[in-house]
Amino acid sequence: MDTLSHSEITALFLALGLLLATARLLGETARRFNLPAVLGEITAGILWGPTIFGALAPAWQTFLFPRFGGGAIAFDGLTTLAIVLFLLVAGMEVDLATVWRQGKVALWVALSGMLLPFSFGFAVAWWAPGLMGYEPGVNHLAFALFMATALSISALPIIAKILIDLNIYRSDLGVTVIAAAVFNDLLGWLVFAVVLAMLGAGDGMPLGHTLWMTLVFTAAMLTVVPWCIHRILPWVQAHTSWPGGVLGFALSFCLIAAAFTEWVGIHAIFGSFLAGVALGHSSHLRERTRTTIDQFVSFIFAPLFFASIGLKVNFAEHFDLLLTLTVLALALTGKVAGSALGGRWGGLSRRDALGVGFGMSAQGTMGIILGVLALQYGLINQQVFVSLVVMALITSLVSGPMLQFILRLKKPRRFPDYMQPQCFVKHLEATDHREAIRVLSQVAAPLINFDPEAVAKAVLAREKIMATGIGKGLAVPHARLPGLVKPVVAVGLSSAGIDFDSPDDTPAHVICLILTPIHDDGAQLEILADIAISFKARVIREKVMNVSGYTEFLALLRSGQSS
Amino acid sequence: MDTLSHSEITALFLALGLLLATARLLGETARRFNLPAVLGEITAGILWGPTIFGALAPAWQTFLFPRFGGGAIAFDGLTTLAIVLFLLVAGMEVDLATVWRQGKVALWVALSGMLLPFSFGFAVAWWAPGLMGYEPGVNHLAFALFMATALSISALPIIAKILIDLNIYRSDLGVTVIAAAVFNDLLGWLVFAVVLAMLGAGDGMPLGHTLWMTLVFTAAMLTVVPWCIHRILPWVQAHTSWPGGVLGFALSFCLIAAAFTEWVGIHAIFGSFLAGVALGHSSHLRERTRTTIDQFVSFIFAPLFFASIGLKVNFAEHFDLLLTLTVLALALTGKVAGSALGGRWGGLSRRDALGVGFGMSAQGTMGIILGVLALQYGLINQQVFVSLVVMALITSLVSGPMLQFILRLKKPRRFPDYMQPQCFVKHLEATDHREAIRVLSQVAAPLINFDPEAVAKAVLAREKIMATGIGKGLAVPHARLPGLVKPVVAVGLSSAGIDFDSPDDTPAHVICLILTPIHDDGAQLEILADIAISFKARVIREKVMNVSGYTEFLALLRSGQSS
Repeated sequence: MDTLSHSEITALFLALGLLLATARLLGETARRFNLPAVLGEITAGILWGPTIFGALAPAWQTFLFPRFGGGAIAFDGLTTLAIVLFLLVAGMEVDLATVWRQGKVALWVALSGMLLPFSFGFAVAWWAPGLMGYEPGVNHLAFALFMATALSISALPIIAKILIDLNIYRSDLGVTVIAAAVFNDLLGWLVFAVVLAMLGAGDGMPLGHTLWMTLVFTAAMLTVVPWCIHRILPWVQAHTSWPGGVLGFALSFCLIAAAFTEWVGIHAIFGSFLAGVALGHSSHLRERTRTTIDQFVSFIFAPLFFASIGLKVNFAEHFDLLLTLTVLALALTGKVAGSALGGRWGGLSRRDALGVGFGMSAQGTMGIILGVLALQYGLINQQVFVSLVVMALITSLVSGPMLQFILRLKKPRRFPDYMQPQCFVKHLEATDHREAIRVLSQVAAPLINFDPEAVAKAVLAREKIMATGIGKGLAVPHARLPGLVKPVVAVGLSSAGIDFDSPDDTPAHVICLILTPIHDDGAQLEILADIAISFKARVIREKVMNVSGYTEFLALLRSGQSS
Repeated sequence: MDTLSHSEITALFLALGLLLATARLLGETARRFNLPAVLGEITAGILWGPTIFGALAPAWQTFLFPRFGGGAIAFDGLTTLAIVLFLLVAGMEVDLATVWRQGKVALWVALSGMLLPFSFGFAVAWWAPGLMGYEPGVNHLAFALFMATALSISALPIIAKILIDLNIYRSDLGVTVIAAAVFNDLLGWLVFAVVLAMLGAGDGMPLGHTLWMTLVFTAAMLTVVPWCIHRILPWVQAHTSWPGGVLGFALSFCLIAAAFTEWVGIHAIFGSFLAGVALGHSSHLRERTRTTIDQFVSFIFAPLFFASIGLKVNFAEHFDLLLTLTVLALALTGKVAGSALGGRWGGLSRRDALGVGFGMSAQGTMGIILGVLALQYGLINQQVFVSLVVMALITSLVSGPMLQFILRLKKPRRFPDYMQPQCFVKHLEATDHREAIRVLSQVAAPLINFDPEAVAKAVLAREKIMATGIGKGLAVPHARLPGLVKPVVAVGLSSAGIDFDSPDDTPAHVICLILTPIHDDGAQLEILADIAISFKARVIREKVMNVSGYTEFLALLRSGQSS
């Protein structure tokens, strides 16, 4: 019986723990800078990979992240499972109705977004093979077809992650991009199956079989299967313990579907993605079950997989600048231009078309998986492989920020973003609203280099026009100040309660002082609304009175709102 | 780079999907027969293992569940991760305060429960080695020590699973058993480390180091570390996205702790169990985060691991009846008698002591892990290994039902258990309570071979004494019938509403007719209470009016109550 050795297990768990911690940490950092979390997660892999950690402590790097032997295999199995489960979650989020509605545009985007980079890649690999790192002796047609595929296949998992990170996954544009990416990648894998057949490396499945089984499977998973699942789920929930029965059903179904597509000759992730679509379509799949799968997969498995991408290659060794630039330029321009053009033909506005172009531009996860196989069969060398991985990383890095820029996406403003630890007054001793406003002005004013008296005066003047008690123990005294550049919020808690003349005649226990720039109407309203929503639940209003300090106050608000 | 091949991935996912589905299915079946789910889960493994599926379709069995090569390694890595995560969940459920309170008893149970089977095992292996399958040429002392350890080490994961399945994990008795099992298994691993050192097979860690590091680590995880975590968690929640930050923190911590104990020379599961204890102690770990980890691990990872036990061996081949009976008799009597005696010395009642004895009697998961290593080092042969695995299975099978019998555990009665599909009337056309009672009596009476008229009369007589509308749109007409052997419940839904003279003056929309045996007071009250609780949430009362039939009705009740 082959099992992992004692030291392999030690290394595997240590590696998983460190990788997960780093990936989550850098993922959070990326979000802090308003970037998709996946950037931080991939970077975590590069840090622990051969390029950085491997250069500093090669023996440790090889011990923790072995490239050969049982540890490497086990790690590969885990990350493959991780990506399959992530695609299940991504599939569950897809709204089939929107897919049908956006189907025409998505088809245009997929076809045109595939054709252009494919032609670019094929042309260069055929007529200037040296530029692409072609080595004599290799089947030239297979090489050209492979490079064309590698440059035109998109990165379904990364695209899904970026759209989810940016919160536009379920928008019309998000659905168009994701549907096009699925279609694009399915096509890409079919072409790759041709390449493998040319090398005589296919797994015995004739090409025609791969083709028709893929088509039939996809069609079934979008029509008949969702219908069946919608009828099976109530039965499962009625006759099994909850939520174990549904969870087990969903996961088994996903794994078997993944095995099927892998067997057919396309990648396992297509099966799990389509299984997710079929499952997510049923209204019988309760929110709680979705949330359990979603949270565990998105925060544990997904970061591990994305980090593992950065681990694969030593970017310093085998790096060929000209080759990499060629590959990158062809892939990026071909994919963005092709997809955007397809979007325009499909009837999108210029901005949306460009957004779709950059949404599709994240490439390479699939390319890397193809690359590993191509490397094994001697079709490409290390230099080409590294150039493909670098291309994958850069296109993934570019896609998110470009999308944000083109679609002018802004992160919703949360009021704690405008607080500092000293702006939190745990015991507000004030007995009337004037005193309360003065105390809060005192803590807020130094942060913006204002005179506390002037701030208090402005707020009191506003208070005179209309009292700011908004009921349920909440008061939001505020003022717009000339010369202020960034909003500031100060919060005070009063266990005795202070009269702010609120409509429900109850005293205010939570008093939030909001100071905003004079020219920024939006900020004041957004912050006001956010405060109202944050304290909407009674349980939050009760718990907030018992927090021990600023950190617990923040912790309460974060865990309260996301639930 | 070593990766899984195309066909290995296909086999792995198909195997995982089939195994998970079967394990969940048989787990549910076991629960239906009032047995711990883990029995069904292990049985699923035996079905797919070499003994049954392997005998029917050997080629398929080897394809799906290979014993050598990449697929076997990846599967081993996954199940090792699964058991580590399951022990994290088990650890999170432990209440440290109870452990300290039950510490003395647990220590007695662990010591005595270890000493007796250890002496039995050592004595027989030393003086009658042939009976234990000893092969000449092997280090006799090492062999005797190993057999003694294998017979005295308990199965922490199985014990935890059985206690959780039986819902007594957090009781005083449950905590005593689990604390004793942890202590017992820690000791067992330390002895095993001695055996490995004797064979010169240790991983380079001197024995003394293993000993003191285990002690220091355990002490720290029960004292300083929980204190630190309680202070770190609010900070994590305040500064990261929720629940991703906490989930990532908890899992990374668990994996690194697991790696540490594996490195020290004891098994990875001790690290993750103690990490769970340290994490679960903090009230800052919110219920939702616990639930997410708990559900995913308990319903996905745990069944996979427990099923994998049954896969390991061909029970038909290498089976030696005498050897197996010897091993089984020594292990079972030694462990039960030793633990029960320890419990008595620690001051438990006779019944509780016997309960603890059988609670501790589940053996072998650890023994199997030890056995695999012992097999590799040539210390034991296949026959001994099979006897250890069979012993593990039988003691695990015996433990749960014996616990139920000794502690007289009963499953809580749920009213749907007394319903049949024909007892559910989706559209109750009745306009007054007499008619409603008559209709429901009509559907219920045939099931118990009663005259519908007589049933209706008895219920109406009861109704006259006191109206059974209990408010919130619920009515519970009921009667106790002489000669009835088992309660019956019939439910009718009336969208128009029927007056049952309820205290809040609202008409009843959900009418539950309850018929119970005349001598069984408990049943009527339990069913009444269960109905009241089931429909307590307004959202359930609203949703129930829209169910399409009996199955959806059951599904709603199950998913509603567990949430």
